[in-house]
Amino acid sequence: MKIRHLALGILLVLGSAAYGQVDTAAFSQIRRAGMGSSQIPHLAHYLTDVPGPRLSASAAYLKAAKWAVKTLKSWGLQRAALEPWGTFGKQWELEDFSIIQKKPYVLPVTAYPQAWSGSTKGRQQGGVVLLSSQQARDTVYLGTHQDDLKGKFVLVAGRQVDPDFNTRPALHRLTDAQLDSIGDTHMLSEADITEYGRAVKISKRADELFKSSGALAVLSAGGANHNGAVFVQGTGAYKPGAAETLPKVILSFEDGQRMRRLIMSGHPVELALNLQARFSAADVQGYNVIAEIPGSDPRLKSEIVMLGAHLDSWAASTGATDNAAGCVVMMEAIRLLDSLGLKPKRTIRIALWDGEEQAMYGSYFYVQKHFMDKAYRLKPEHAKISAYFNLDNGSGKIRGIFTQNNERIKPIFETWLQPLHDLGARTVTLRNTGSTDHLAFDWAGIPGFQFIQDPLDYETRTHHSNLDSYEHLQFEDLKQAAVIVACFVYQAAMEEQMLPRKPPEKRRFLFDGY
Amino acid sequence: MKIRHLALGILLVLGSAAYGQVDTAAFSQIRRAGMGSSQIPHLAHYLTDVPGPRLSASAAYLKAAKWAVKTLKSWGLQRAALEPWGTFGKQWELEDFSIIQKKPYVLPVTAYPQAWSGSTKGRQQGGVVLLSSQQARDTVYLGTHQDDLKGKFVLVAGRQVDPDFNTRPALHRLTDAQLDSIGDTHMLSEADITEYGRAVKISKRADELFKSSGALAVLSAGGANHNGAVFVQGTGAYKPGAAETLPKVILSFEDGQRMRRLIMSGHPVELALNLQARFSAADVQGYNVIAEIPGSDPRLKSEIVMLGAHLDSWAASTGATDNAAGCVVMMEAIRLLDSLGLKPKRTIRIALWDGEEQAMYGSYFYVQKHFMDKAYRLKPEHAKISAYFNLDNGSGKIRGIFTQNNERIKPIFETWLQPLHDLGARTVTLRNTGSTDHLAFDWAGIPGFQFIQDPLDYETRTHHSNLDSYEHLQFEDLKQAAVIVACFVYQAAMEEQMLPRKPPEKRRFLFDGY
Repeated sequence: MKIRHLALGILLVLGSAAYGQVDTAAFSQIRRAGMGSSQIPHLAHYLTDVPGPRLSASAAYLKAAKWAVKTLKSWGLQRAALEPWGTFGKQWELEDFSIIQKKPYVLPVTAYPQAWSGSTKGRQQGGVVLLSSQQARDTVYLGTHQDDLKGKFVLVAGRQVDPDFNTRPALHRLTDAQLDSIGDTHMLSEADITEYGRAVKISKRADELFKSSGALAVLSAGGANHNGAVFVQGTGAYKPGAAETLPKVILSFEDGQRMRRLIMSGHPVELALNLQARFSAADVQGYNVIAEIPGSDPRLKSEIVMLGAHLDSWAASTGATDNAAGCVVMMEAIRLLDSLGLKPKRTIRIALWDGEEQAMYGSYFYVQKHFMDKAYRLKPEHAKISAYFNLDNGSGKIRGIFTQNNERIKPIFETWLQPLHDLGARTVTLRNTGSTDHLAFDWAGIPGFQFIQDPLDYETRTHHSNLDSYEHLQFEDLKQAAVIVACFVYQAAMEEQMLPRKPPEKRRFLFDGY
Repeated sequence: MKIRHLALGILLVLGSAAYGQVDTAAFSQIRRAGMGSSQIPHLAHYLTDVPGPRLSASAAYLKAAKWAVKTLKSWGLQRAALEPWGTFGKQWELEDFSIIQKKPYVLPVTAYPQAWSGSTKGRQQGGVVLLSSQQARDTVYLGTHQDDLKGKFVLVAGRQVDPDFNTRPALHRLTDAQLDSIGDTHMLSEADITEYGRAVKISKRADELFKSSGALAVLSAGGANHNGAVFVQGTGAYKPGAAETLPKVILSFEDGQRMRRLIMSGHPVELALNLQARFSAADVQGYNVIAEIPGSDPRLKSEIVMLGAHLDSWAASTGATDNAAGCVVMMEAIRLLDSLGLKPKRTIRIALWDGEEQAMYGSYFYVQKHFMDKAYRLKPEHAKISAYFNLDNGSGKIRGIFTQNNERIKPIFETWLQPLHDLGARTVTLRNTGSTDHLAFDWAGIPGFQFIQDPLDYETRTHHSNLDSYEHLQFEDLKQAAVIVACFVYQAAMEEQMLPRKPPEKRRFLFDGY
């Protein structure tokens, strides 16, 4: 074992020895500019408040994407454009929404429609029937209880599970000990993908049964006490040809649990709901945002270093931490590299991805189009991309980077990160992280990375919730992240060699499961 | 100084020596029953979920009050009844409510009407004008900008002040050090009352100016990031003869701040609002709930020991921690004393107060009716009441008691509390606490006390917010509180003497200020 480690050590040293020294002067320039006159608050406002929720295929998504193209162009970037990546599906625009408890007493209800929900027939009022989470996905139960649901609102609510959620701070930062022992995060196994596919099929069948029952709508309330945060995603009805579901709404924990308890103690509940949404299949095409700083070295400028983040969001808020945060960091990083006149040798390309929230569509199909097709055949551009850097875990500053088990990368990134230790980033781990857009690159054997970020209140409050708004962004963290991303991208663009690779993998993607 | 302290010490010892030993057998019986077969979850459901928000004078308040009377009677308590305390004002019933952002994009808005808000003329849509908090109470500004407000929604929103609210746990318990150094809490000085009166007058004048401007409604958003908790109180339009205000709505911090930023960057905002509320002055009378366990000792049964909490709540949620918590503790305490057959010598009387949230009306006018009139003349019953115990600081367990600077009480309560130390309650402080119903008793020279409670998430999440619901109650805390209250009330009912008093004070009450 020890001899093997020693040999590996020598190999690693040789591997990294082929990479040049860090350009500390450039790093210093980037740090000064990035921590100083940052554009981040301005960019964040124009990616969140101004367009609204950037649901894939929505008018707001396109507005944000076009604004990004215009902004990147205005900074002098080249080839800034929307790049179609393939078929996404239907546009869904919320036109009106209201919900209120009418009986046993009138009380405002905090709730949000699921994206791609169906509409009510005008404003509808009716009684509420309660189903457990288990009953709501038991297609045999739903099949034999169709009459019970007819003309009713179906409330899917489990028992309260976490009554003292508030004892821990909702926001936290990683300790040194946590960084030292960081493991694989957000990774899906083949079994997970199979299970996910099974759950999607059951959910689709349950949606059909809810619809055939003549129920008015399906209302769900979380089982855990999130103290005012309502976590809302969407239906699968965006897919071309998919059937429209019943109106589907997520209630706040407090509203859903109150209704559950009332029904359990024999007090009938009535609601009034109005949900009007417009579906359009006029343009089912999805679009990523792409722009470049052309490389300055005639020998290396055909090679590219990419950075990116997904631009789309869910619809209950304006997707500030998921993932305007990543987009503004990447935009700011490329702005810094461009505006400082650092003349990177390789071409630097930014991508803001579409459809990440549904199944990482934008990045996956971009990789398929440019680098490796669905049959795992490499394309010429595959030999010309050095690396892809991604950010998608909220507003937290960068504490290090996952190398996705690429042992030859580790010493290189350790060298690059060394002058940035004082910014709080010092961890280069061999571990993997998943569930976002670097995976498509990693899968294709292209060095693709997601940085380690402080969690802040991402998992507890903002991620996919109604609180994912501008005021939950932490600008000092985002500035730091932009500086580190800019340094890494710059260094990758300046090294004599492209980054060392792992072989491509024949691996299923999330949406291969269903 | 030392000699004075010594003299005081002797006096205190003599003072407490006149009081008997703690009945530890009774305390043990109370503890076993109270920590065991508690009725608290059941009582809490029937005071929160079942009636809904218990706004003073509302149908829900009366429903809850009548349910309490019926329940107290069913336990065998005597003289259980609604007791009118005087004129409160108008009933206000919310009938319908919806609000949504329509431009620059459609987005659900989390918001709640202020209690006693006026109604919109059906559903109204219009643009939003932004006022700072300062402009909104500047009657000169409002007078000269009437035309700007006409036909608009007025948004009152300040800049974000606390962006990292989540770094501290929202819920906390008092440490020994905090208990040792506890100070006066929630006390209003004469100057505060004067200032409050001034603010109420300005607010009333501003409401008139908003109304005369022809604005559609006044929407306010908090200035601090409360992460999904919306804090909502009411207007003064409950008063007989008071003018109806414009519709008044509180927006979530996130929604309000987004609109503020949009307007500031030149992006017009439009909303649609429907607020329908019904005012009634059919019964302007206020009612407290009263019930008794008659004393068992012929010599002492004409003397009473009271316990109580306010039954009314605000309207954005079901008032679980403010103050169904206090009511269920007091109900459970008197149930324990009654059901255990302990035969208290003095009469024990429970009061559930009305109108606390507006200005502690129920308790104040009860004291005025029974014990000391507005001209500070004592009534015969004044000589017959030993003490009043109150609970109104949320769901947190009892950690001790405020003696309101009554030095002769301190050693007595220390003796009583000693066998309860292991329940986490050990602090008897000379300090004062205010802002709730024991004050009326204290003011009249009747020993009136509020217990020290663990804060939990009362100030941070639930107090006057849309999250003040059943799932934020901590039942183990409430059980402990019921046990301690029952022990204190029992001991006060068994002592040979009534508790030592301070002289009555000629002090202004909150509502004397306006």
